[in-house]
Amino acid sequence: MSRIAYVDGVYLPLASAGVSVLDRGFQFADSIYEVWAIRGGRLFDAEGHMARLRRSLRELRIDFTMSDAALYAVLRETQRRNRVADGIVYVQISRGAAVRDHVFPSPAVRPTLIVTAKNLDRAAITERAARGVKVITLPETRWARCDIKSVNLLPNVLARQQAKEKGAFEAWFVDRDCLVTEGTSSNAFIVDAQGRIRTAALSNQILHGVTRAGLLKIARDRQMRVVEEPFTVEEAKAAREAFMSAASNPAVPVIAIDGVPVGDGRPGPIAQALRALYLGAAV
Amino acid sequence: MSRIAYVDGVYLPLASAGVSVLDRGFQFADSIYEVWAIRGGRLFDAEGHMARLRRSLRELRIDFTMSDAALYAVLRETQRRNRVADGIVYVQISRGAAVRDHVFPSPAVRPTLIVTAKNLDRAAITERAARGVKVITLPETRWARCDIKSVNLLPNVLARQQAKEKGAFEAWFVDRDCLVTEGTSSNAFIVDAQGRIRTAALSNQILHGVTRAGLLKIARDRQMRVVEEPFTVEEAKAAREAFMSAASNPAVPVIAIDGVPVGDGRPGPIAQALRALYLGAAV
Repeated sequence: MSRIAYVDGVYLPLASAGVSVLDRGFQFADSIYEVWAIRGGRLFDAEGHMARLRRSLRELRIDFTMSDAALYAVLRETQRRNRVADGIVYVQISRGAAVRDHVFPSPAVRPTLIVTAKNLDRAAITERAARGVKVITLPETRWARCDIKSVNLLPNVLARQQAKEKGAFEAWFVDRDCLVTEGTSSNAFIVDAQGRIRTAALSNQILHGVTRAGLLKIARDRQMRVVEEPFTVEEAKAAREAFMSAASNPAVPVIAIDGVPVGDGRPGPIAQALRALYLGAAV
Repeated sequence: MSRIAYVDGVYLPLASAGVSVLDRGFQFADSIYEVWAIRGGRLFDAEGHMARLRRSLRELRIDFTMSDAALYAVLRETQRRNRVADGIVYVQISRGAAVRDHVFPSPAVRPTLIVTAKNLDRAAITERAARGVKVITLPETRWARCDIKSVNLLPNVLARQQAKEKGAFEAWFVDRDCLVTEGTSSNAFIVDAQGRIRTAALSNQILHGVTRAGLLKIARDRQMRVVEEPFTVEEAKAAREAFMSAASNPAVPVIAIDGVPVGDGRPGPIAQALRALYLGAAV
């Protein structure tokens, strides 16, 4: 785990790193976050994550004035102090601490910036991807702006816990039209009966996955057929393949949905190829 | 404002009261809260708020073992240390601090308990109620479990900010069926064309307001007609009266909705009567 955290300008032992009880991240989920994968010592898809962080801040009108260059310097220093070669760096920015009131503080207060970094167990992640994972499906319960990478994550927590208790790794949310939106912390894909890679188009309903975009670009560059159209749970169960993606989990094959095997119940070739190509681009 | 905060067993100056950056309240909105009004030095509707706090904890399966008696003792001591005679006490309980992972920590960690208290400007509140307030309406953007009093409040923050920027005090959420659910931090009521007090029935879409229940009881005890049925924005604009309620704002008349005056554009008699009866019960 992370041992050193950056908190508003200071590097502290994680055990003593805190935020005010009045922080709006704590009292209102009025906070965004971003996660970069670190592979081979480098921030992966660095600009894509930075652009999304800036978009999340803009959407919430959090006036965070630190430059990209200064923030990258903090990310790298946090990475260095935690000796992370293969893991993630986590950034959270809240609107700041103020006497509790739903409206934005006026005058504005200084946003709170937290950065942590930790190594991941790459062997376990690789083994999981090789084995494939199970997902369950649950009704969409989240708010209307899942495109903003905010900490308004309580429904994600509850869904992920349900997945775990049913022996699955992830839960996919299903909207009122029976369409899969995405997972609790990953985008959702299938390879449909016609062999097309399918995933929901960008909208306010899903996170605009940086890894999702990277995988789709690789697929299109390889002349694979890609359609950004959502799919139903029934289509997913009848698909040739299914997979999920996140910064730390690119193109992980999904081998069962609600207990129903996908395809022959083993990781599919397209997901495996995309994963290899994506990770190959890292080095 | 609160000057002394209770944090996990210790009373601290608010300025130095913090939670870990790993607190799940901060990283996942995995936390509930409760607010008691204090009037004439006493916790108002004490048992109703305690029962709702316990329900919120149960719904999230947060294993908070402190007894009601012990928690009341903390509330009263926090009130005393902050010299609050007329204000609120705020309680927040998160699932605790743990290395970031969506699923519940296993083994469980100790929940984080924060208590603060502050005096409110009763004269300003009374004046606001006498004048009446304006509300705007906005599409419902929140999650599916608004009955849980959680800090998953980012949509409430954004809606309340929009209300402020439009010169209104509160925003009412309107669901896909054009029905008003509730406000960002209050329940919503009208007195309809037939003279009936109307408010949405309890469901997962709204907070089960303790003050809402108290007002409805008073109305029924006085043989007023009460129907727990939701109303549309059009019905609200055409209503005889409208009002909102929260622990610190019982039965506040709403005099305009989206710029349209309600009734004659002045506080209505039923809202004023309910407010007086409710506050009269406090002393």
